[in-house]
Amino acid sequence: MKKVVAGVDIGGTNTRFGLVDEKGKVLSENNFKTTDYPKINDFVQALTAGIKKLTAANKEFKLVGIGIGAPDANYHRGTIEHAPNLAWKGIVPLADLIRKKINVPVVVTNDANAAAMGEMIFGVAKKMKDFIVLTLGTGLGSGIVIDGKMVYGHTGFAGELGHMTVVPGGRECGCGRKGCFEAYASATGLVKTVIELMSEIRDESTLRDIPTSKLTSKKIAEAAAKKDPIAVKAMNKTAEILGFGIINSIVFSSPEAIILFGGLANAGEMLFAPTRKYLKENNYVLMKDTVKILPSGIPESKGAVMGSAALIWNDLKK
Amino acid sequence: MKKVVAGVDIGGTNTRFGLVDEKGKVLSENNFKTTDYPKINDFVQALTAGIKKLTAANKEFKLVGIGIGAPDANYHRGTIEHAPNLAWKGIVPLADLIRKKINVPVVVTNDANAAAMGEMIFGVAKKMKDFIVLTLGTGLGSGIVIDGKMVYGHTGFAGELGHMTVVPGGRECGCGRKGCFEAYASATGLVKTVIELMSEIRDESTLRDIPTSKLTSKKIAEAAAKKDPIAVKAMNKTAEILGFGIINSIVFSSPEAIILFGGLANAGEMLFAPTRKYLKENNYVLMKDTVKILPSGIPESKGAVMGSAALIWNDLKK
Repeated sequence: MKKVVAGVDIGGTNTRFGLVDEKGKVLSENNFKTTDYPKINDFVQALTAGIKKLTAANKEFKLVGIGIGAPDANYHRGTIEHAPNLAWKGIVPLADLIRKKINVPVVVTNDANAAAMGEMIFGVAKKMKDFIVLTLGTGLGSGIVIDGKMVYGHTGFAGELGHMTVVPGGRECGCGRKGCFEAYASATGLVKTVIELMSEIRDESTLRDIPTSKLTSKKIAEAAAKKDPIAVKAMNKTAEILGFGIINSIVFSSPEAIILFGGLANAGEMLFAPTRKYLKENNYVLMKDTVKILPSGIPESKGAVMGSAALIWNDLKK
Repeated sequence: MKKVVAGVDIGGTNTRFGLVDEKGKVLSENNFKTTDYPKINDFVQALTAGIKKLTAANKEFKLVGIGIGAPDANYHRGTIEHAPNLAWKGIVPLADLIRKKINVPVVVTNDANAAAMGEMIFGVAKKMKDFIVLTLGTGLGSGIVIDGKMVYGHTGFAGELGHMTVVPGGRECGCGRKGCFEAYASATGLVKTVIELMSEIRDESTLRDIPTSKLTSKKIAEAAAKKDPIAVKAMNKTAEILGFGIINSIVFSSPEAIILFGGLANAGEMLFAPTRKYLKENNYVLMKDTVKILPSGIPESKGAVMGSAALIWNDLKK
């Protein structure tokens, strides 16, 4: 028999799932539209049927657990709670519902925590005990590992670094507050910074020819690669705020590395180089030069499924 | 035989030490001037002789460990490193030096971590697994406990919340940077806020009759208790920044409680009430109303010795 874990990534639009072996190899995968199942029981039925089908495809497979990354997920309770981007309202006892269909250990946490677990078990943090993963996409998610353990906190919602205030009185955030880290250091934050710069400085830029609603971090990174002045300045400004938020995180837990993952991180050295420079110049003296800024070690297309599966593999290794 | 632990508090001026039993009772104590021993070997000789004398005073006592709180202490290495307020320069291998004289487990960490351990083992955090202690004195120290374990981080220097930047470009900090949490939310920070307010607003205040070099947080708290307008405003402003820094810490580790200790915390409800109000109004939605703001449960005069001893009692309980 070959032990396999199901990794599940529940997004607002798509749900992807796959079987992952102990080494992190994705053996098979499938997906469906989350939005096709506005009722949670139908969703659970579709997901568990999908996992059973993948498992049945090979007589050698023995399913030993299901790991799930989902928005607004609570690790302690195995729930999804008041997720604004999902159809299921209130508190959804997802882990319990799934266990009634497939009786194996089920773990639920948010996608950034799953990403961090993926880095620890299969990725660039394999030998690390203290690190932080920042997922720089539409928002900014974070997974924090301290002394080899994921930080869930008293509520189960720990690791919301996207909602540190980095600019008091600054940009509006989806959470209803102002100046949150994710309003600046994310793919959408980069777009906002370009718009801000277009209003403030006179430099010519090809980005001025794109409707602001069509601007993306990818287009900005491409323009920056061609030395477009507004794109370059926006990247540097984003790196500065990213560095600022990273330093405020470093004084908390003194990690060995900060690992950057997701849309904005794909800008590569254009983002990493000025971020490292900011840290070198501004980090608190006791932590100076003690923290690596690293790109993720997990392929982006497989990251969510591998990370979710890692939640279970980590438990089994204990 | 009665097992006892020596708790040691090394300060820039005085070193205090005592024997503490499993329940946190300080059985005997003594102290000497740290400044009398500019050579580390002489200091270690004096300290170990002092501990031996206390232990020998009762035939029933069996010394099972020595816990030490000291500035710029590194838990992983058992060292004091480049402490600006101590005479011993460079890296001092304190734990090793003491173990050569008294062969028991020796643990060294900074005083705020010792305070946090004291709260967990003997104080208000006895039943908590996730909390943060802020020591609001000359500076702002912090001890962070996550899932029942002290956070030391990759370097051993974790928990330096006093050096989060809370006001970008703000007040000068002793660390050479600007706008650090401890430049505002500490006893000295409160004094600075009073001076700032005296320059900005026209309100009458008895504090204007005191030379600024003689202002203390105690005098300001006394004036605030008598409704002195500048003192009250300074207290509220300090509570706001304290609340701001606390929220930025909450999104990190989602603690059950923030415990306030030290000079500024002695202002009591004049500080606690506006801090709680700020949190109620400004905390991130997922953490709202999940965090208690509590005064320390350890008597201030015994706190340092009890906290240092708790470092060892905690290890022995494992």
